[in-house]
Amino acid sequence: MTTIALDAMGGDHGVAPAVKAAAQVSQRPGTSVLLIGDEPALRSELRRHKYDPASLVIHHTPEWVSMDDSPKAALKAKPNASILMGAKLVAAGEADALVSAGNTGAGILACCEHFKKLPGVPRTALATVYPTEQRRGEISDPFSLILDVGATLHATADDLVGFAHMGAVYAACVSRNPNPRVALLSNGREPHKGPPEVVEAHRRLAASGRINFIGNIEGVDVPRGVADVVVTSGFTGNVVLKMLEGISETVMELGRYAYRNKLTWRLGMMMLQGGITQLKALTDWRQYGGAPILGFDKLFIKAHGRSNWRAIANAMKVAQKAVDADLCATIDAQLTP
Amino acid sequence: MTTIALDAMGGDHGVAPAVKAAAQVSQRPGTSVLLIGDEPALRSELRRHKYDPASLVIHHTPEWVSMDDSPKAALKAKPNASILMGAKLVAAGEADALVSAGNTGAGILACCEHFKKLPGVPRTALATVYPTEQRRGEISDPFSLILDVGATLHATADDLVGFAHMGAVYAACVSRNPNPRVALLSNGREPHKGPPEVVEAHRRLAASGRINFIGNIEGVDVPRGVADVVVTSGFTGNVVLKMLEGISETVMELGRYAYRNKLTWRLGMMMLQGGITQLKALTDWRQYGGAPILGFDKLFIKAHGRSNWRAIANAMKVAQKAVDADLCATIDAQLTP
Repeated sequence: MTTIALDAMGGDHGVAPAVKAAAQVSQRPGTSVLLIGDEPALRSELRRHKYDPASLVIHHTPEWVSMDDSPKAALKAKPNASILMGAKLVAAGEADALVSAGNTGAGILACCEHFKKLPGVPRTALATVYPTEQRRGEISDPFSLILDVGATLHATADDLVGFAHMGAVYAACVSRNPNPRVALLSNGREPHKGPPEVVEAHRRLAASGRINFIGNIEGVDVPRGVADVVVTSGFTGNVVLKMLEGISETVMELGRYAYRNKLTWRLGMMMLQGGITQLKALTDWRQYGGAPILGFDKLFIKAHGRSNWRAIANAMKVAQKAVDADLCATIDAQLTP
Repeated sequence: MTTIALDAMGGDHGVAPAVKAAAQVSQRPGTSVLLIGDEPALRSELRRHKYDPASLVIHHTPEWVSMDDSPKAALKAKPNASILMGAKLVAAGEADALVSAGNTGAGILACCEHFKKLPGVPRTALATVYPTEQRRGEISDPFSLILDVGATLHATADDLVGFAHMGAVYAACVSRNPNPRVALLSNGREPHKGPPEVVEAHRRLAASGRINFIGNIEGVDVPRGVADVVVTSGFTGNVVLKMLEGISETVMELGRYAYRNKLTWRLGMMMLQGGITQLKALTDWRQYGGAPILGFDKLFIKAHGRSNWRAIANAMKVAQKAVDADLCATIDAQLTP
């Protein structure tokens, strides 16, 4: 039996999506949910759903961190904040993984406070998946993984090497892609291209032989999906990820501009309306799976603040997969020389 | 009379596009062309075009740098390389600006050798335009400017402040956008977001009052065109620019994936074929205008290696505009305290 601790507070849409996701997941055999938050609000919402009471326990706390709170200050002011409670309960072994759609910074700080960084890990990283043209792995996964996407801004060669190994383990465990292609993002494909830390990380990854390192990739290769795991600093990763967000809307706009004034094109656009809605759903990939924080002895999956119940249930499914694959221990083994 | 020195060698498509562009531009009143390269090859190609012999002079040199050459080594081995000749002739006042579709690194090094960095400029930068949703300026320009895109990888706060001022001057002079919105690319919109050099540059630009500084933008704002001038380090600029390159193709692919199996959607896509071709032309923006190197006392416009004759003629038109607006002197004035 796997127990997922779910911080039900602090998402953009209140407790409703988390409660519905918890109710659904509680009915899956082999999974139980530890739902953390304001008990009266959770109970009241829970009444609206079918769930398995044997697999859904509420852990009450009246405090939580909201999206607009400054993470550090909020955690100091609210020692019983739901995200801190969640991390504490996972650290104490009451649950196997933590999931939250709340404030990202507070989530990372809560992990830092209650989880232990694995000894071989130079630096923990926030990773996320994004959709690409290429499919990969046993489950024809259309997503690549990119890390770091914002836990820390600057990355040393050590950090980048650590990210590469952690990303490879995650892709193998969760995306069931046994030999993921790992690449460094740089300003050119040649090994000598890039700032010193990227050149040095390249040299070490090429020499390592423990992962399928395909070398440097450039910006153009990111949306193509040339690599299954894209390794970069938190600053560049954040810019890349947010650019991907803007892609779908902008190309559609450029498209409208190009098609303007021609009847057959306008008709074509009308016929595509349903397709465009589907395309938007596909490119709104933050609904898929959530972002893992990698490098701690315990697992935290951050679902997007805007998550609906399906997105939160997906994040819990990802957490389940990672627990089943013993992700943290596998990362530990990979990074122990 | 403006004279444009055009390095005819080293582009991906041989001398043909440069010669045709030179022939066309020679017929424009007020512009003459100094065509630099292998005279027999140039003469032979020139015979195929109508041109004004009074406004087109060939400067012979038998040497040039190819795309695959290592810039430093090639320039050392070929002291009469066409790009070096071009920079030398512009420095000597034989022409007013230099245009080339050849090796970018060699172009930058040739400028470093023969041009002088303006005294108030902390660091020269390679800038380029890209298409966005928003229109701007007197000529309803659909392009934003981004710099640095690869002249140097790391940028200090000093460098970023210099890029911001140079970019603002270029947008005002060439895009005829008198009050361009200038922004720093960071991992968040708040002034304190980003690595120390970005935070410090933000502080100084916000205090300056000499440009229309709108603060930080995020990756999602780049394709939207929220800023007219996007300021960043050469490493991030290179990644961003190359990601923009991959956008159109990838979204089209994702679109095909989403539309698969539904007849009306397939019909819609067929009706849009012409529109998609136009969209591709629009997003293949490297055909527009070329990339200026900013911060020297003389002007160099780098056209893309894949340029056709129209793209090279466009780059020459941009050079003409910049000369007319006295770009280098205006940058000098802007950066002199």
